[in-house]
Amino acid sequence: MSDVNKAIEYAHENHERFLTELSEFIKIESISADDTQKDKVTEAAKWVAAHLRKIGIENVKLMDTGGHPIVYGDYIKKPGAPTILIYGHYDVQPVDPIELWETPPFETSVKGDYIFGRGTSDMKGQMMATINAVEAVLKIGEFPINLKFLLEGEEEIGSKNLPAFLPANADLFKADFCLNPDAGMISPSEPTITFGLRGLAYFEVHVYGPAQDLHSGMYGGTVHNPAQALAELIAGMHDANGTVTLPGFYDSVRAVTEKEREETEKLPTTPESYLQQTGAPALWGEKEYTPALRTGARPTLDVNGLLSGWTGAGTKTILPAKAMAKISCRLVPDQDPSEIYNQLVKYMEINVPETINWEVKELNKSPWSITNLDTNGIRALHKAMESVWGCAPLYRREGGSIGVVAMLQNICGVESGLVGGSLPEDNIHSPNERMHIPTWHKNIDAFIHFFFNMK
Amino acid sequence: MSDVNKAIEYAHENHERFLTELSEFIKIESISADDTQKDKVTEAAKWVAAHLRKIGIENVKLMDTGGHPIVYGDYIKKPGAPTILIYGHYDVQPVDPIELWETPPFETSVKGDYIFGRGTSDMKGQMMATINAVEAVLKIGEFPINLKFLLEGEEEIGSKNLPAFLPANADLFKADFCLNPDAGMISPSEPTITFGLRGLAYFEVHVYGPAQDLHSGMYGGTVHNPAQALAELIAGMHDANGTVTLPGFYDSVRAVTEKEREETEKLPTTPESYLQQTGAPALWGEKEYTPALRTGARPTLDVNGLLSGWTGAGTKTILPAKAMAKISCRLVPDQDPSEIYNQLVKYMEINVPETINWEVKELNKSPWSITNLDTNGIRALHKAMESVWGCAPLYRREGGSIGVVAMLQNICGVESGLVGGSLPEDNIHSPNERMHIPTWHKNIDAFIHFFFNMK
Repeated sequence: MSDVNKAIEYAHENHERFLTELSEFIKIESISADDTQKDKVTEAAKWVAAHLRKIGIENVKLMDTGGHPIVYGDYIKKPGAPTILIYGHYDVQPVDPIELWETPPFETSVKGDYIFGRGTSDMKGQMMATINAVEAVLKIGEFPINLKFLLEGEEEIGSKNLPAFLPANADLFKADFCLNPDAGMISPSEPTITFGLRGLAYFEVHVYGPAQDLHSGMYGGTVHNPAQALAELIAGMHDANGTVTLPGFYDSVRAVTEKEREETEKLPTTPESYLQQTGAPALWGEKEYTPALRTGARPTLDVNGLLSGWTGAGTKTILPAKAMAKISCRLVPDQDPSEIYNQLVKYMEINVPETINWEVKELNKSPWSITNLDTNGIRALHKAMESVWGCAPLYRREGGSIGVVAMLQNICGVESGLVGGSLPEDNIHSPNERMHIPTWHKNIDAFIHFFFNMK
Repeated sequence: MSDVNKAIEYAHENHERFLTELSEFIKIESISADDTQKDKVTEAAKWVAAHLRKIGIENVKLMDTGGHPIVYGDYIKKPGAPTILIYGHYDVQPVDPIELWETPPFETSVKGDYIFGRGTSDMKGQMMATINAVEAVLKIGEFPINLKFLLEGEEEIGSKNLPAFLPANADLFKADFCLNPDAGMISPSEPTITFGLRGLAYFEVHVYGPAQDLHSGMYGGTVHNPAQALAELIAGMHDANGTVTLPGFYDSVRAVTEKEREETEKLPTTPESYLQQTGAPALWGEKEYTPALRTGARPTLDVNGLLSGWTGAGTKTILPAKAMAKISCRLVPDQDPSEIYNQLVKYMEINVPETINWEVKELNKSPWSITNLDTNGIRALHKAMESVWGCAPLYRREGGSIGVVAMLQNICGVESGLVGGSLPEDNIHSPNERMHIPTWHKNIDAFIHFFFNMK
């Protein structure tokens, strides 16, 4: 039996234990957005570090970033062989709205082919698939290449300390290629390599009217209602076609080429699949682009949250003193995340009436990325996926943002292979997040192939 | 010394005790909007009932309305003399946003001429002023007229059970005039009789998009964001002039007459006074009407609350599944509160795109009212105010809504005298509600005069 097959056999024999370990990991409520949960996030870092040590990874340490720590580890025994950097994040999204979860978010439950829990799909499960694959290869003999780990705790809050941390530790994370399983697949039967990610710029927009909530009967009609004023401002941020109206927003957006149009038309995503995945009554957006291009190649602006006045049960007849919106933009080449703040401020300067005071707070930003596909790493991934699924992977640009990818390119010169077993129906960032267990198993196998393909 | 002066002397001697009793009353957290506080609201009803019994009012009882009880009581010893119905409400507004209160809302504190606490001005304080005046007159001798009490616990939630309760008990509440101290004054030196109130129609507007919150990177730009869709709908509910765009909204609105324009120009309220009272950066609204006419004689539409998606600290990159707005309209003659629901639904039917599902819930409605000023009750109030303040009262239409006024007119044939010591700067419905104690004392005196003037 070849080493690759021995490792795959080892993995298959340990599937049940891998799932139990994942459930332990999910239990740790590592919500990075929640400042009151800081200890839980650190606990998750320590859990991963202990797990890496247990399987034989060396030099494991928690590195201070100013925020949640980076878990580093390495296994460097093959001078001259390539070094793979394995990326992962051990933090998860908030669970709100908690009332829509059918099972407790931090106690996994298995139903049919799925395991449910916050972080199963995004991405504790995906990260453990790489670590399980490493374990399998380590257990059956000599590791064919060198390994490093970069596991962060702030991906879900925009990797906000990485831009300072990574340049300060650029040598430590130098590698020939980064395996990043945070991107997902189009469907369980369609292995996917993501080569484009959108950037992100996230804001809070605050509008202020009267000094405090007013009696709507005494002052309604004489004072501009901040909730209404905010609605007017938000409504103006798109035109009727769904195009964003921030001044200069599209100035540096690369035009979609005919080739890109043709390639995305090969993807199995259709308007119908979008409708089915989302449950939306109808699709929406720029008519001159397909849904796949709208999310992959075009920048967008979304309202992530709205809050003003009385939102409890029943009636309160106030004219609220203020209103707030969380607004974020997904960015594409060659938009500069830092410029979006200026464009939003410019929009407000032009459109806010004298009846309203306002403030825009930048919460975070991360750059877009396009992966160079002409590398040994991508070829090794391609071949690994073919071995496991029996077909060539699809190549796509994705709508999400993973800040580390561009940073590794720009700061460490490392290209990333964006893969992973997360599926569109996994409810990531939503209630009832789940992971497809058979796909998870296939990814463990694919990662084992990948390590041997790289040697 | 005349009886009226004896009663006033009694009141002055007991000012301190009256304030202590009011503080006890304020302590009871009778927030009618909060279903979890039902017991507290009933406790307030019982407190008032006990107090009425203590000062000598007879037949005091709590009457079931299906919601919070009505406190009834009477003192009928003068056959042939007029009967005055004293109206009040013992429920209060919610205290949210609690963090803006400088002192606990349900523990009164006195600073200078003001007593602070939820309900001091709206309207436990005003209600106690009438009851204190009744006590003073009762203590010094024979009561010159007959009395009935109608004290409700649902004014702040639109008196929603009164429309069924009042017709079923119309005879019990028949009276020659209703003293209603829930309306307030323009300033401490300007006694005011309010002769017009606006009606109210209060709704929740819900919009629904995808089946659940989506990852904004995966679906932003392809699914109409419900928070954005709601913003677009709200933005369209007013035109650039601040005029409401619901279909048919102004069809039955009585035009403001030249006489009304002239009369409101006599009022001391100016754009500057509105700015000072509200702290708004600039005034807003229909340019062809003065602020006093906008709130008194024109209907309005206000957003009372907005909620969608992630509103906690930090970032969550979702496209929310839904969004909600609390929206209410203040109504003027001859608008029918029941029609506004149809107009809002019509607006939604015309304007909601196929990308969004929606629902409009009617939370409550109450009719506008115009008081007949040619009555003995109004003349007795006018004279009472002149005696205390040394000047004639001002007559105004007010922007607020007190459902009982039109119901008493229509169901019991009783006209109301809308007065009270609530001042524009009292922060009613807002944090740090307060009441001006010297004005409160003057109102007790005025009510004593009023009872004697009515005989």
